[in-house]
Amino acid sequence: MTEKTLTNNEEELWNAMRMFNKTILLVEDNPQDEMLALRALGKVNLANDVIVVRDGQQAIDYLFREGEFADREGPDLPAVVLLDLGLPRLGGLEVLERLRADPRTELLPVAILTSSDEEQDRLQSYRNGANSFVRKPLDFAEFAEAVSQVGVYWMAVNDPPVF
Amino acid sequence: MTEKTLTNNEEELWNAMRMFNKTILLVEDNPQDEMLALRALGKVNLANDVIVVRDGQQAIDYLFREGEFADREGPDLPAVVLLDLGLPRLGGLEVLERLRADPRTELLPVAILTSSDEEQDRLQSYRNGANSFVRKPLDFAEFAEAVSQVGVYWMAVNDPPVF
Repeated sequence: MTEKTLTNNEEELWNAMRMFNKTILLVEDNPQDEMLALRALGKVNLANDVIVVRDGQQAIDYLFREGEFADREGPDLPAVVLLDLGLPRLGGLEVLERLRADPRTELLPVAILTSSDEEQDRLQSYRNGANSFVRKPLDFAEFAEAVSQVGVYWMAVNDPPVF
Repeated sequence: MTEKTLTNNEEELWNAMRMFNKTILLVEDNPQDEMLALRALGKVNLANDVIVVRDGQQAIDYLFREGEFADREGPDLPAVVLLDLGLPRLGGLEVLERLRADPRTELLPVAILTSSDEEQDRLQSYRNGANSFVRKPLDFAEFAEAVSQVGVYWMAVNDPPVF
């Protein structure tokens, strides 16, 4: 089982976290990155807590329970949104702008997860209110390690504004 | 050596990070928490990159190179500020407010690290622009685990706005 990859302390954190039914909203249009991210989150026991949407408009609809997500189940808001920047329909920076402009999501933790290494993207992400900016490592193993660290940090170490 | 506690991937991240001479500014007035935090950061090879200040005014002076820190060395800004809330002279929430009001530090990553479990403190931290809010676990081992995860995340996983 994947549980052997957790230390005792991580497992305690994980158990505490499960009680709150926290979720991760992964906004990712690249199928390979999605697969790698889900596998990495699986290794830290988070696979069942991930909701995947594949463009910026879907992310908005999911978070505000609109459109195809009008009747969705699950907690009102995820513990964190892992947000790609280059997305179909609505880009990540615009998603972020809309989230920060709405009182329901203005404080929602958002970590940008992108292959962009443009300083401009990084600065604009922070200016638009991203909590964190993580560049996707090009190497598969490093990518997996980064995603699992991002997942554990925002699910088990950070306390979101609203539980 | 403590290096055995790192996985290969963490060690690669760590080596990459060292090149940028990143630092952590730890703002902590409780000597026991300071000692535990430094020990925990030492286990993930970050002890040499930590600057400790013990009240809110010192944090401001350090960041803006004022007062006793007018001639300090080191990078302009740390990669992250680990900020306690209950601090002498100037409280954490007020430090945060001042950092967000100044263009030099408005985007600087700040993670609140506090024993408070008051919802009001958590919400106000996010409202004042904290990137992350981490409650100090009461158990020593869990506290150490949380601090080292916070350190590794903001030093080796997150990209700060300015290097």
